[in-house]
Amino acid sequence: MKTPLIDNLQYANWSQTIFRQMRAGGVDAVHITIAYHESFREMVLNLEAFNRWFERFPELIFKGTCAADVRLAQSTGRTAIFFGFQNPSPIEDDIGLVEICHQLGVRFMQLTYNNQSLLATGCYEDDDTGLTRMGKQVVQEMNRVGMVVDMSHSADRSTLEAIEHSSRPIAITHANPHWWHPALRNKSDDVLKALTGRGGMLGFSVYPHHLKDGPACTLQSFCEMVAEAASRYGAEHLGIGTDLCQDQPDSIVEWMRVGRWSKMIDYGEGSATDAGFPPMPSWFQDNRDFGNISQGLLDVGFSEDEMDGIMGGNWFKFYDSSFGPET
Amino acid sequence: MKTPLIDNLQYANWSQTIFRQMRAGGVDAVHITIAYHESFREMVLNLEAFNRWFERFPELIFKGTCAADVRLAQSTGRTAIFFGFQNPSPIEDDIGLVEICHQLGVRFMQLTYNNQSLLATGCYEDDDTGLTRMGKQVVQEMNRVGMVVDMSHSADRSTLEAIEHSSRPIAITHANPHWWHPALRNKSDDVLKALTGRGGMLGFSVYPHHLKDGPACTLQSFCEMVAEAASRYGAEHLGIGTDLCQDQPDSIVEWMRVGRWSKMIDYGEGSATDAGFPPMPSWFQDNRDFGNISQGLLDVGFSEDEMDGIMGGNWFKFYDSSFGPET
Repeated sequence: MKTPLIDNLQYANWSQTIFRQMRAGGVDAVHITIAYHESFREMVLNLEAFNRWFERFPELIFKGTCAADVRLAQSTGRTAIFFGFQNPSPIEDDIGLVEICHQLGVRFMQLTYNNQSLLATGCYEDDDTGLTRMGKQVVQEMNRVGMVVDMSHSADRSTLEAIEHSSRPIAITHANPHWWHPALRNKSDDVLKALTGRGGMLGFSVYPHHLKDGPACTLQSFCEMVAEAASRYGAEHLGIGTDLCQDQPDSIVEWMRVGRWSKMIDYGEGSATDAGFPPMPSWFQDNRDFGNISQGLLDVGFSEDEMDGIMGGNWFKFYDSSFGPET
Repeated sequence: MKTPLIDNLQYANWSQTIFRQMRAGGVDAVHITIAYHESFREMVLNLEAFNRWFERFPELIFKGTCAADVRLAQSTGRTAIFFGFQNPSPIEDDIGLVEICHQLGVRFMQLTYNNQSLLATGCYEDDDTGLTRMGKQVVQEMNRVGMVVDMSHSADRSTLEAIEHSSRPIAITHANPHWWHPALRNKSDDVLKALTGRGGMLGFSVYPHHLKDGPACTLQSFCEMVAEAASRYGAEHLGIGTDLCQDQPDSIVEWMRVGRWSKMIDYGEGSATDAGFPPMPSWFQDNRDFGNISQGLLDVGFSEDEMDGIMGGNWFKFYDSSFGPET
């Protein structure tokens, strides 16, 4: 069977249109964000909403929980949807909710979303105190049940400690190297070396604030960055996590940034004059544009096999070894 | 493989001792009550507590979600634990929680626990208005996902309407015929005929308030009642649902009766002078005593096959056709 095409991070304003675009783009699996700042009960409401999508469009999408579901998606011409949290807020202060969320299908959880959490320090805090007491125990519990630690929005020390403390490889599902574009959200060479050195995965983001030259970033520049990352970390540890936030109103990016933790506006990666969602680069507008990235990777010298791995094969192997109980 | 032994209702004060008694008694599967009056979040705490039991005693018990798990229990010498609610309180006013609870492993839900609920009328209310608007839709949703409607604590009209409205057979998991012992919780001949006429199952209770002569009820009287029920309704629709509440303090039966819906004491099936849990009959004290019932059924004239069916084979078939999505 063909190597699957996997996008390991999207948070769109879901619609039949987007699900059809996934099919048109040949996307076999997508890891989608089901919670940012939600409590457990609020997150369950989001799961319920997705259950309605699954009920309404069974010919387009279904809930994925294991690597075999990616194969099922390929053989039935559908897209498997995997769930993840960008913040540990849904597990509240209750370690037992890790397993409950895993039973509900959640397969990735960020230990922080920009801020300090109960588990670790986010990348926007002044000081990073690493994994908390609860954080260490939650990582162990995530390892046990098969939920992937995601440090995309975490600060460096916390990320390094998560890599070290986790008995299983972890992920940075959506970020780029800091050496290419020095955004606060992009990751240092040390972090990426430690991550991939322990079998972890990096998903490259196409979100303009993570791109050199923002929305004007060229496909060639993006793909040359991927090539340099492959030479530093090994192509087998690389994948895609576009961070596509298609069709979201600007009120959503504000909510992502301030949730209910602040009474003030926080522009996050934006600014007062650039407060909303930035426009996506011309070569990646929606799920139908993955072919551009595939071709771009071939054009900068990747082999077909390497390109297939980066476009989904590497995430597929990672899913296969990550989502079941620890052995 | 041998016909499995299944008890389709217990609510014990769980302990290693009880799990070991299940093994000693050769009990392959037990449907246990995971919620009486709990909200969704509170019920999830109960699931978490059971996840800890599964983690601590994997050699004794595991979570069952389908009939194949009963076979797995038999082949690995363990007991499969199936979850159910005695009240729809965990789904709150949210029909989407039916599927979420099913995803968490819940396989039975009573539409009422003695009182009026959002879905139907309980057996202790003065007037029975049948299925509510939400009740009809929830039955349909339970049918869709594969969660069994249980009317053990419901009033007659509501029960008859649930049987009629449900597209799949329903259950009365723990009650006895009213013609044998006219307790408010026991079921009329009309209800039992309608239930079994549509393929539904009745689980016989050994809870003393449901027994003729209470704790003094003889095994012979109990088994003669089963024989009469078999002649009226067909042995293939009969099973066991002991309602064993082993090792529970009396505070629990008070909580079962009044939850937080009342500020007054309600003695339910008991009385001011008999307020606690009644003593169990001598021939059924715990999970090691199912052999007494099997022998008692043979002694009143059941064939080995009929006895095997009543002791678990009938529930096994019912599980097999009930727990998956509607086809």
